[in-house]
Amino acid sequence: SGAAVESLDYEVIENYAYREEQAKRSKFWVPYYIMLKWLFSLLIGVGTGLAAIFINLAVENFSGWKYAATFAIIKHSYFVGYFVYTLFNLALVFSSVYIVTNFAPAAAGSGIPEIKGYLNGVDTHGILLFRTLVGKIFGSIGSVGGGLALGKEGPLVHTGACIASLLGQVTCGCAAGVAAAFRAPVGGVLFALEEVTSWWRSHLMWRVFFTSAVVAVVVRSAMNWCNSGKCGHFGAGGFIIWDISGGQEDYSYQELLPMAIIGVIGGLLETPIESSFLAYGKQCSLSDAHTNPEKVSIGFTPGALFNQLTLYITKWRRTYLHKKGRRVKIIEACLISLLTSTISFVLPLLRKCSSCPEVEANSGIECPRPPGTDGNFVNFYCSRDKEYNDLATIFFNTQDDAIRNLFSAKTFHEYSAKSLITFLVMFYSLAVVTFGTAVPAGQFVPGIMIGSTYGRLVGMFVVKFYKKLNIEEGTYALLGAASFLGGSMRMTVSLCVIMVEITNNLKLLPLIMLVLLVSKAVGDFFNEGLYEEQARLRGIPLLDSRPKQIMRNMNAKDACKNQKVVCLPRVSRVVDIVSVLQTNKHNGFPVVDRGQNGESLVIGLILRRHNFSDFVKPASSKGKSIDDIHLTEDELGLYLDLAPFLNPSPYIVPEDMSLAKVYNLFRQLGLRHIFVVPRPSRVVGLITRKDLLLEE
Amino acid sequence: SGAAVESLDYEVIENYAYREEQAKRSKFWVPYYIMLKWLFSLLIGVGTGLAAIFINLAVENFSGWKYAATFAIIKHSYFVGYFVYTLFNLALVFSSVYIVTNFAPAAAGSGIPEIKGYLNGVDTHGILLFRTLVGKIFGSIGSVGGGLALGKEGPLVHTGACIASLLGQVTCGCAAGVAAAFRAPVGGVLFALEEVTSWWRSHLMWRVFFTSAVVAVVVRSAMNWCNSGKCGHFGAGGFIIWDISGGQEDYSYQELLPMAIIGVIGGLLETPIESSFLAYGKQCSLSDAHTNPEKVSIGFTPGALFNQLTLYITKWRRTYLHKKGRRVKIIEACLISLLTSTISFVLPLLRKCSSCPEVEANSGIECPRPPGTDGNFVNFYCSRDKEYNDLATIFFNTQDDAIRNLFSAKTFHEYSAKSLITFLVMFYSLAVVTFGTAVPAGQFVPGIMIGSTYGRLVGMFVVKFYKKLNIEEGTYALLGAASFLGGSMRMTVSLCVIMVEITNNLKLLPLIMLVLLVSKAVGDFFNEGLYEEQARLRGIPLLDSRPKQIMRNMNAKDACKNQKVVCLPRVSRVVDIVSVLQTNKHNGFPVVDRGQNGESLVIGLILRRHNFSDFVKPASSKGKSIDDIHLTEDELGLYLDLAPFLNPSPYIVPEDMSLAKVYNLFRQLGLRHIFVVPRPSRVVGLITRKDLLLEE
Ligand SMILES: Nc1ncnc2c1ncn2[C@@H]1O[C@H](COP(=O)(O)OP(=O)(O)OP(=O)(O)O)[C@@H](O)[C@H]1O
Ligand SMILES: Nc1ncnc2c1ncn2[C@@H]1O[C@H](COP(=O)(O)OP(=O)(O)OP(=O)(O)O)[C@@H](O)[C@H]1O
Ligand SMILES: [Mg+2]
Ligand SMILES: [Mg+2]
Repeated sequence: SGAAVESLDYEVIENYAYREEQAKRSKFWVPYYIMLKWLFSLLIGVGTGLAAIFINLAVENFSGWKYAATFAIIKHSYFVGYFVYTLFNLALVFSSVYIVTNFAPAAAGSGIPEIKGYLNGVDTHGILLFRTLVGKIFGSIGSVGGGLALGKEGPLVHTGACIASLLGQVTCGCAAGVAAAFRAPVGGVLFALEEVTSWWRSHLMWRVFFTSAVVAVVVRSAMNWCNSGKCGHFGAGGFIIWDISGGQEDYSYQELLPMAIIGVIGGLLETPIESSFLAYGKQCSLSDAHTNPEKVSIGFTPGALFNQLTLYITKWRRTYLHKKGRRVKIIEACLISLLTSTISFVLPLLRKCSSCPEVEANSGIECPRPPGTDGNFVNFYCSRDKEYNDLATIFFNTQDDAIRNLFSAKTFHEYSAKSLITFLVMFYSLAVVTFGTAVPAGQFVPGIMIGSTYGRLVGMFVVKFYKKLNIEEGTYALLGAASFLGGSMRMTVSLCVIMVEITNNLKLLPLIMLVLLVSKAVGDFFNEGLYEEQARLRGIPLLDSRPKQIMRNMNAKDACKNQKVVCLPRVSRVVDIVSVLQTNKHNGFPVVDRGQNGESLVIGLILRRHNFSDFVKPASSKGKSIDDIHLTEDELGLYLDLAPFLNPSPYIVPEDMSLAKVYNLFRQLGLRHIFVVPRPSRVVGLITRKDLLLEE
Repeated sequence: SGAAVESLDYEVIENYAYREEQAKRSKFWVPYYIMLKWLFSLLIGVGTGLAAIFINLAVENFSGWKYAATFAIIKHSYFVGYFVYTLFNLALVFSSVYIVTNFAPAAAGSGIPEIKGYLNGVDTHGILLFRTLVGKIFGSIGSVGGGLALGKEGPLVHTGACIASLLGQVTCGCAAGVAAAFRAPVGGVLFALEEVTSWWRSHLMWRVFFTSAVVAVVVRSAMNWCNSGKCGHFGAGGFIIWDISGGQEDYSYQELLPMAIIGVIGGLLETPIESSFLAYGKQCSLSDAHTNPEKVSIGFTPGALFNQLTLYITKWRRTYLHKKGRRVKIIEACLISLLTSTISFVLPLLRKCSSCPEVEANSGIECPRPPGTDGNFVNFYCSRDKEYNDLATIFFNTQDDAIRNLFSAKTFHEYSAKSLITFLVMFYSLAVVTFGTAVPAGQFVPGIMIGSTYGRLVGMFVVKFYKKLNIEEGTYALLGAASFLGGSMRMTVSLCVIMVEITNNLKLLPLIMLVLLVSKAVGDFFNEGLYEEQARLRGIPLLDSRPKQIMRNMNAKDACKNQKVVCLPRVSRVVDIVSVLQTNKHNGFPVVDRGQNGESLVIGLILRRHNFSDFVKPASSKGKSIDDIHLTEDELGLYLDLAPFLNPSPYIVPEDMSLAKVYNLFRQLGLRHIFVVPRPSRVVGLITRKDLLLEE
């Protein structure tokens, strides 16, 4: 799969053209450049905010109409209702998978692993194109509106990154995406910082923060504008997505044990789902890039039923999908849509309704909920008036509303354990099966769904066990969600802030922290984070922030022991250069020359794509292979001086530097090539802090 | 001032001893090491939490007793009351300044600039010693309890860093300090990340986060334990310091203009106070380190009255303090204490009382407040019963309570503009005068005081202007505080999160962001952040995260143009080494040797303090100068082989690499020395991403 990815150059290539450009710059260039960057940040914020509003508006209106229509029809016939509901979902999912498979294959999946790779220094083909952006926006409307077990948050991060990449600031875009998806500006900044970027500069923080703030303002303004019903079903929930600020305020020490247990469950439960995600991820990369099928069995941790299950599905899928192309992907997505619709409609039908609880007059809770509203206590296929169907409340609902209902406070015993377990098992299975279909898909919201379901189960148990009435089941649902996400994504600070911002309950911060710490620790014991594993399976070679332990005992020379370095002379015939480039696939070549005294001298590094800057414009040469450049006989006979195009001062290390130090250099500076050179014969100068304290 | 500071070595010195140690390590070493680090993080969290509780407990009880006693006495005689109040303050301030001047001079001031310097790579003498820790804890109890116009938050960060430095993890300590000071764990992590550290590794975040979480749990547990009055006056305010979650929920677009104006005021107003801080900072560094007095006029921005004022005070102070020593510092602090006590007691006396507003029955507000409670509407020198003294409410009160009163909601028109302006002017002046005395002093709380006062003033104006009743003056006070801190400290994300965490009002997040952005932008237009300026004045050479613009047009060789590099041969007589070390003050020397063919070869870098590792134990040689090591004639005649002690592979750069790239290397990796070498003659190998993807 190495064909699809290529390293990025973050290094400034100080060649002739660059120096000339630097010299030409007027003294207004720096302020102009800064202004431009800030303007771009503003545009990214506005763009991502608008994209998020558009997606949300479309998704919530589609779902709103769908459920309104279905609820209206089932008054007359449940069968017709089922039919309409299923068809509506199918149409949306079909549109999504059709767009993705035909126009923007890179828009499938969440996109976060690829963005992470990009910011780590690896470019995946097509991941930040404009067509990917368009495919992602429209594709995620279809897949989320179509009721599949996936979320729109990951795709929104990808959308933000695509918008930002048009203006050259991918990090800002990631932050903007999270800020827009969760309406969590601080969380967005932290997400970009903790989870995505590999090289963080503190001056970046300030601009990323600005972008997030812009997103928050744009989204809030739009929601205010929509408040009076101008936007249909959109904007009902308010700026805070799942507000539980009215919930549990305090907690006793006895509760810490069940909370820690939630953390452990999160760490454990994600393992199978992650592995199954892995399986699908692998399937994707397999069908796309034709890697060695033998490797499939790696990603699995033992002992989990789901693993086996997904292994079979994967195998079946692979052998099937492998042969046919696009069309099978479309059919697969449609089948999964049918399955999802059927399960979410039929299962609640089979469930007996419960009678409504006694509620106080002004508690704001109505049972059953009035028609046309979103809320708890859905009346679905109930024989009597004062009854509600607890499974329909979470299953036959949009995911946002379902989570709101699971988080809700002052609704003791709303759910029976049986319903929650049914839902947990079925939704978990659906999430596993859905993952890997060719539609834009995020894992945040499914994770919150699953986590809050088992969290609420634990909460019910705690309420029963401690018989203390100021325990809220909703709080446990929130902690469950945090634990599941913490166990799968392994983000700590950012996830914590996101959870606080989406629920608006700062008092729970220490509890969320505790749960996240436990679930991450448990998860880390078994495997890497979800995004890292996904990236690896897609053949994106991420560099960890720390060198491996064995690197401490290795030298730079050991890392390139069997290498015969391919160099280019400073001046040579075009035909010779072409033959060197054709005989290997390296992307960088040291250029050597003769010094004044005839001794050999390394004068720089030339990139493959810079070799023919004379013939091909540098911008268009990107991605162009040597075989695509057709040169005439005359041109082949010319002599070419590489000096103006090369990078005259790549970073160098002495051959006996430990590989750990080399790694740090490579990783911290975001390099692509390092020259290993013999020990120098003398020191021309010595640079210390004092030498770098120049005054401008 | 170069004598007091020295660069730190973050680089691993892979000498003989290190390699031997690495080789000796068993395979349990890595898990053991990780466990140890986590244990240390836990200990740092617990330690900082306990230190914070101790300081808070002491300060709040001292202040509590003080005000209780004073209020009891003034029923009989205002004169005796004044006397007792002043004496109490004086005793506390005296104890503080006495401890600091006699035992822990490095404990004076906030300590944050020094910590920032430390994490940027510069060690200030004595800043992280155990005695500094003790001096800081007891000193800040005296200075804060003694009612001076300074805060305990900066000192707590320093305390945390000292505790952490005992265990080798200064970054964790900073985060723990902020987490403890503001009870803001997430804010603490961000503060450490944004404001303090220069090199951030993402795996650090997770441990810093853990430490903050531990602090939060420790502090919360202690406050719960104290809740029932077991700890005297401590813990009355609850975990959230200045809870305004009941305040203004929404805002209209017309309000954005006054809010932006607050931001501008914050940016402008900090300029004079910062400059005056500078003046004092300078005075400190002047009296301590005898720098060139000509430089004093740099830090001032034109046009501010305060600048002139503080310039005079500084000059007077300098010429005076310069001659005498410790005793003058003590007298100075005591005089300032007398001044502060007098102003805060007498000014409210001169103010006419206002009559109490009509309050609804169950609004929880009482006017005047009952004796022995903390709250609004203080009855101080009022002739009638149903009256309160608005100036006393903020001035004759602890700073925490004063801020709570300024932030308070549903207390329209509590303060008259005249009182607020009086307070603003007097407190601002006191803060300016107090800064630079030899006591532990933070700038957070004074900043919040000043900012919330003018914020509330603007709020009063807005209420009057827009005549809209759901505008809360307290909200404007909060925004004012944010703007002042943003204008002075220039932190964005961390300050934002800290403000949200200390007030528990997430809904105001976008507004706080807006205000911070404006105030930072305005402030940046005039000067650098407070901590950077302070650090510079104390002779701590901080390296910015970005290279200066001119560095792009310079080469590595230009940076060391006039250098005659002092090298050491691999084997030489001790007497020769001694004479080299005595003729210069450099801290690092290239070591040269002859290769097999007789050509010269640079074999590494030796640090000054490693030269005599044979004679002096390395640990104790730190800080020992060459003149302190007494060697016998025999020893001087010995031959010494430097090979086992040197760093065999320092980072090297070719001589024509641009200085900007060298700067990045130096700054990102936290180096102390870089060798500038001639272009290499050949490339031994080429390292790319693929070569670094080793599997363990
Ligand atoms: N000029 C060269 N001469 C000899 N070996 C080289 C040369 N350039 C690279 N190599 C080696 O060949 C392997 C692959 O090199 P390549 O340039 O493809 O790097 P890469 O890690 O795949 O990154 P990229 O995305 O830049 O291709 C590496 O092990 C590298 O050390
Ligand atoms: N061995 C050396 N030979 C020649 N010049 C040197 C040598 N070491 C340092 N210098 C130069 O002398 C100046 C001061 O060097 P010094 O070693 O004191 O560094 P510094 O920046 O003060 O940091 P430190 O805190 O390590 O002392 C710098 O300009 C540096 O380039
Ligand atoms: Mg390659
Ligand atoms: Mg020096």
